[in-house]
Amino acid sequence: MVNGSTTVDPALREIVTQAVDDLNYVPNAAARALMTRRTDSVTLVAAEGDDRVFGDPFFAQIVRGASQELTRAGVQLSLSMTQSDLQISSLSRYLAGGHTDGVLLISEHGGHRLAEKLVEAGIPVVIGGRPLDPAVEVPYVDNDNVAGGRLAAEHLRARGCRRVATIAGPADMSAGCDRLEGFRQGLGPDFREDLVEHGLFTMASGEAAATRLFERSPDIDGIFVASDLMALGAISVIRKLGKRVPDDVAIVGFDDIELASMAEPSLTTIRQRTENQGRLMARLLLRQLGHEVDDVESEPAPSTPDGRGIVQHVDLIERESA
Amino acid sequence: MVNGSTTVDPALREIVTQAVDDLNYVPNAAARALMTRRTDSVTLVAAEGDDRVFGDPFFAQIVRGASQELTRAGVQLSLSMTQSDLQISSLSRYLAGGHTDGVLLISEHGGHRLAEKLVEAGIPVVIGGRPLDPAVEVPYVDNDNVAGGRLAAEHLRARGCRRVATIAGPADMSAGCDRLEGFRQGLGPDFREDLVEHGLFTMASGEAAATRLFERSPDIDGIFVASDLMALGAISVIRKLGKRVPDDVAIVGFDDIELASMAEPSLTTIRQRTENQGRLMARLLLRQLGHEVDDVESEPAPSTPDGRGIVQHVDLIERESA
Repeated sequence: MVNGSTTVDPALREIVTQAVDDLNYVPNAAARALMTRRTDSVTLVAAEGDDRVFGDPFFAQIVRGASQELTRAGVQLSLSMTQSDLQISSLSRYLAGGHTDGVLLISEHGGHRLAEKLVEAGIPVVIGGRPLDPAVEVPYVDNDNVAGGRLAAEHLRARGCRRVATIAGPADMSAGCDRLEGFRQGLGPDFREDLVEHGLFTMASGEAAATRLFERSPDIDGIFVASDLMALGAISVIRKLGKRVPDDVAIVGFDDIELASMAEPSLTTIRQRTENQGRLMARLLLRQLGHEVDDVESEPAPSTPDGRGIVQHVDLIERESA
Repeated sequence: MVNGSTTVDPALREIVTQAVDDLNYVPNAAARALMTRRTDSVTLVAAEGDDRVFGDPFFAQIVRGASQELTRAGVQLSLSMTQSDLQISSLSRYLAGGHTDGVLLISEHGGHRLAEKLVEAGIPVVIGGRPLDPAVEVPYVDNDNVAGGRLAAEHLRARGCRRVATIAGPADMSAGCDRLEGFRQGLGPDFREDLVEHGLFTMASGEAAATRLFERSPDIDGIFVASDLMALGAISVIRKLGKRVPDDVAIVGFDDIELASMAEPSLTTIRQRTENQGRLMARLLLRQLGHEVDDVESEPAPSTPDGRGIVQHVDLIERESA
């Protein structure tokens, strides 16, 4: 009744209506805290559709890391996927309704403004990846994407590649922007704007981007691809063109998913510690929720200049593709 | 405060404590209905760990089907994974706390008794797959696993296989039992108890089961494997033994995941309509929740003898492996 349910006994409803009136009920966050207990649950929100969440091992690794920490703290983890504006509004309303103690937000795109909506509703949030908008004052755990892009570019140049392209991630995600920025720094004066294509981190989008690149510049001899799945897509295009990897075109991926070491040829890539990222996100959130957690700062991961984030170190893993 | 929160103003807490006492507060489902509005959210509970949920395309397909139906009805879907008894208890408590309108339960194992706990707590539940215990009176959407096992056995016999084994699913799941029962029926007097091994529906467990089978009976010439992932594991073992598929050993899988048609050799398998199963489960649950849904019975899927379930038709898809 307080929230409009109509399935209760009318007499009981009358009594409670009166009590609520007497209490001068205001449905704000404090009142909600009275009405709903602490749930001992946390929601991992992936701002993506189910195809990407189940198709990209990144998400499984974040879930694995986060759920290890949360289970140890006796906190339940549930997962919500949300993509359209409609879904995002309905999810924000649900989460603001006292059904979760806090949110771990991954794969946030710049235009969603989901983090802001949750913070406005008084929900503790930790983001996986740096928010593109510096006005979003939310703790986050990121990977050193700029360093990763730079390492990849330097590795391709050191191999002797002379026309080095990149398939970057989405321009509305910091992982997309930062890996591209690092690549640009690493190539220095050799960076060419016309050898940049963007993909959506999926295999199909990697194929499409590689096709566009080779149509424009058939003599590309090295590509930094900003996710391993996109890199596998790019390699299948390169093969269809009758070129060999790495002899004709060298490829550096990003992520180090399990498939990277199993692929033929195995993938040279930038390893990010995704499972640990999930673990750190959970610990930052548990601390906000008043749980005792080990000192998160003791991790071998420096804080960001803005003091709100933790940035994990990345490494180049050299295999066969570059 | 009502539920033990300690983060509210003490004066306010005192007022509400008094009001709650005056109301003779009892924390049962009716009281909860007063305290918490309808959430317009539904929880998909997978009684498995995150490794299986993200590693087996079955789960992604159920999510895809269910979320299509729920999104259309304006209902939010969240996903919870739960495996240990501890996690199951904590999840039951959370769900019973008014944080979801209903539950879609998949991959229920006999020992969990999760469905009973949810029903006792007054939560609408629909199960994916027939509950092993007939006392669990919950609507469910199943696939015709018995027919699938029978089709597989008959196909292997019709090919001329003479020593036909099976790698069945877990004995505490109806999909495991029913596919084995169909296989037994299909082989008739040729069925041999010593050519049965069980796996956990994963690739690794398929490898282990195939290894045990060939150690015991090196002359096996056909295997019905109760999931495609287990079948891919079995094929890798058969190859390591220097045998060819299908010439030396014919393989029939179950599921028809995307990999089945992409594998080398492509996999003959029993196709079940998993995405549609998720869709039907969502519709049965929405109907329980009072939403208007199309007539579920108009689906080309007969009801079960107990009248509580819908059973989807399955087909044998013939490819290279058998």
